Amino acid sequence: MPKNAFYAQSGGVTSVINASACGVIERASQAKEIRKVYAGLNGILGALREELIDTSKETKAAIRQLRMTPSGAFGSCRYKLKSPESHPREYERILDVFRAHDIGYFFYNGGGDSQDTANKLAQYSHRQGFPITCIGIPKTVDNDLPLTDTCPGFGSVAKYVAISTLEAALDVRSMAETSTKVFVLEVMGRHAGWIAAAGGLIKNKPSDPPHVIVFPEIAFDPVVFVNKVKAVIAKEGYCVVVASEGAQTAEGRFLAESGVSDAFGHAQLGGVAPFLVDLIKRELGLKCHWALADYLQRAARHIASKTDVEQAYAVGASAVESAIAGHNAVMVTIERLSDAPYRWKTSLVPLRKVANVERKMPRRFITKDGFGITQAAKTYLAPLIHGEDYPAYKTGLPQYASLKRVLVPKKLASAGF
Amino acid sequence: MPKNAFYAQSGGVTSVINASACGVIERASQAKEIRKVYAGLNGILGALREELIDTSKETKAAIRQLRMTPSGAFGSCRYKLKSPESHPREYERILDVFRAHDIGYFFYNGGGDSQDTANKLAQYSHRQGFPITCIGIPKTVDNDLPLTDTCPGFGSVAKYVAISTLEAALDVRSMAETSTKVFVLEVMGRHAGWIAAAGGLIKNKPSDPPHVIVFPEIAFDPVVFVNKVKAVIAKEGYCVVVASEGAQTAEGRFLAESGVSDAFGHAQLGGVAPFLVDLIKRELGLKCHWALADYLQRAARHIASKTDVEQAYAVGASAVESAIAGHNAVMVTIERLSDAPYRWKTSLVPLRKVANVERKMPRRFITKDGFGITQAAKTYLAPLIHGEDYPAYKTGLPQYASLKRVLVPKKLASAGF
Repeated sequence: MPKNAFYAQSGGVTSVINASACGVIERASQAKEIRKVYAGLNGILGALREELIDTSKETKAAIRQLRMTPSGAFGSCRYKLKSPESHPREYERILDVFRAHDIGYFFYNGGGDSQDTANKLAQYSHRQGFPITCIGIPKTVDNDLPLTDTCPGFGSVAKYVAISTLEAALDVRSMAETSTKVFVLEVMGRHAGWIAAAGGLIKNKPSDPPHVIVFPEIAFDPVVFVNKVKAVIAKEGYCVVVASEGAQTAEGRFLAESGVSDAFGHAQLGGVAPFLVDLIKRELGLKCHWALADYLQRAARHIASKTDVEQAYAVGASAVESAIAGHNAVMVTIERLSDAPYRWKTSLVPLRKVANVERKMPRRFITKDGFGITQAAKTYLAPLIHGEDYPAYKTGLPQYASLKRVLVPKKLASAGF
Repeated sequence: MPKNAFYAQSGGVTSVINASACGVIERASQAKEIRKVYAGLNGILGALREELIDTSKETKAAIRQLRMTPSGAFGSCRYKLKSPESHPREYERILDVFRAHDIGYFFYNGGGDSQDTANKLAQYSHRQGFPITCIGIPKTVDNDLPLTDTCPGFGSVAKYVAISTLEAALDVRSMAETSTKVFVLEVMGRHAGWIAAAGGLIKNKPSDPPHVIVFPEIAFDPVVFVNKVKAVIAKEGYCVVVASEGAQTAEGRFLAESGVSDAFGHAQLGGVAPFLVDLIKRELGLKCHWALADYLQRAARHIASKTDVEQAYAVGASAVESAIAGHNAVMVTIERLSDAPYRWKTSLVPLRKVANVERKMPRRFITKDGFGITQAAKTYLAPLIHGEDYPAYKTGLPQYASLKRVLVPKKLASAGF
């Protein structure tokens, strides 16, 4: 008997998570084992609130357009389920909703926390005698999931950061004689420097930008940093810095918290660039400019990596195939078969091996001085930004999908979520 | 007798100023009246220092590639020549260098100040009995030159801002239920809101982002602003703000100076977004994110407007044609022939009419409440972002021109510039 499927987007969205949704929905439409795909309105909250979007009410063209549309078209959320032992109510509610809507498949599209939740739900539903097939679909710009070559979402941010660094560097270089000498681009990456590292992809020789990359993995020393900038200016006449928002001191204090941002009382990160600029101005008296890419970097579908889009679609489609082939409590991964030419395929790992493991950038990916990336890092990163996959444009603007988001009629009373 | 030409880039660079350079060099190569095009290394400083780049030493392919390359490939500078009456030394030196290198044509690619300089040099050289044909080529992302429909450089920034606003808005909307509710994008525009206005191009109905545009033209009132954001949140659940760096109070005080940025001791602008975010957090307690596009916006050749690129090339080529047709002390302009379909041609205006006139955004382009753009503004702005003109890519990165920049041997002693 065919069952319905539930698909949810989780955590920070990316420019290609909708490509994964497209992969799930298009592949499921060809599977006799799956009747309908319901998408959670605002992720897992949609299950808790019984707010299920009936994806069969969307046109095929709109579903196709998801492949080209950034953000989470069904809504995502930051909502972490705790353990079913301590907080069974959420799991009970999800099973109630799944039972009421004859849902037998759960596709959870998110990062480490989401994979953990999918794993817990698989076990819990099995114990309750209503087993749900739970498949994790990887997604995170942070590239910190283990056991997969990369995480869909990362390649496109990497491409955005590399291109933005290249373009801004050309700009600064052409003005440096009489104007701005130092440019700092602050990028995401709370715990790992993967995104900052991508800036290094544009460097082919020592004089090329970026001249300094500030990684969370390398304890920040203001004296060493200032001396490095000074030396670069003396030699090249300008200096381009790519800084990770997670940059921190040897004591593990975020730069974003230690200096400038204190003045605002900000809890969230985002002040590394002004901190560095302040330091350079004070110590070297140089004119600086800085940019904060923030959401622009993870939403930049207009310059997405073709490789990333293809992988995002593939992990979605592969999740459906794995489910109907009888797999359960697994996450789809990207497996690298060769570096150059880059060849890859999807594969599977048990969710229990993924949950709560964070992949840091290996030290051998960072140069000895701590300010650049090595050839090993380039070999790893380069193929992830390969290819362009432009959205369709009309009157100068990308034509992104706008879904109807028709909700399935509720069958249960509210449970107060 | 054919003469050499001198071409210089001036002021803040753009993603299409090199397309104008390409237009000058390619068109000049077909003109028997012009022998060689020398480009100033770092703009007008190249003339003062006798640092002339011989563009004939570049390959044709490299010159062609300029059309696709952001920044100032020959170097630009912020160096304003004063009047020849009070500071004749600079003008004398330029004429000395032009005489030494048999230069009869001066193409100056810049904003209002540069057009003023070109005009003064035309008059001065005439008075000195060594008349130089001086032609201004418009360039400024600020779109504030008078008597031209638009300024090359602006259309591409407008496109970047519109697309970035669209993408970030989709991101915020998909997360707003449990995460960030307000997103602020700070864009350039010191004196006029043209760039911020471009964000409004993505709004088709009242519920669409951007919900608030903060213009320099409209006195900023914190109470009115906070109430507007509050109302938008109540209705839409999220709020997207595009803010011009030139936003100011009724007393003419820049927001970037009045609040947050004071803490850093910054003189330059760039703190409007954190100022607004601080205000919203304090008054409404909402989670906010913000981005500062800074140089990324004016260097973003990867998403340049095709219309803008074509106009940038055309004003360069037309400058050469006008010069050899005998025009002098004129600036090339873009003349709009119709809105839809957008048709335009190049034209000429006397430099004296351009110098020191700043085109503000008309009040009728801004909605009554001061937070949006009108249909008149859309009709004006829309065609300027039409079309895409992607650079060539290799291994995932745009292939931007890298010139040899061979200098012409010096003939004069240094003059200490």
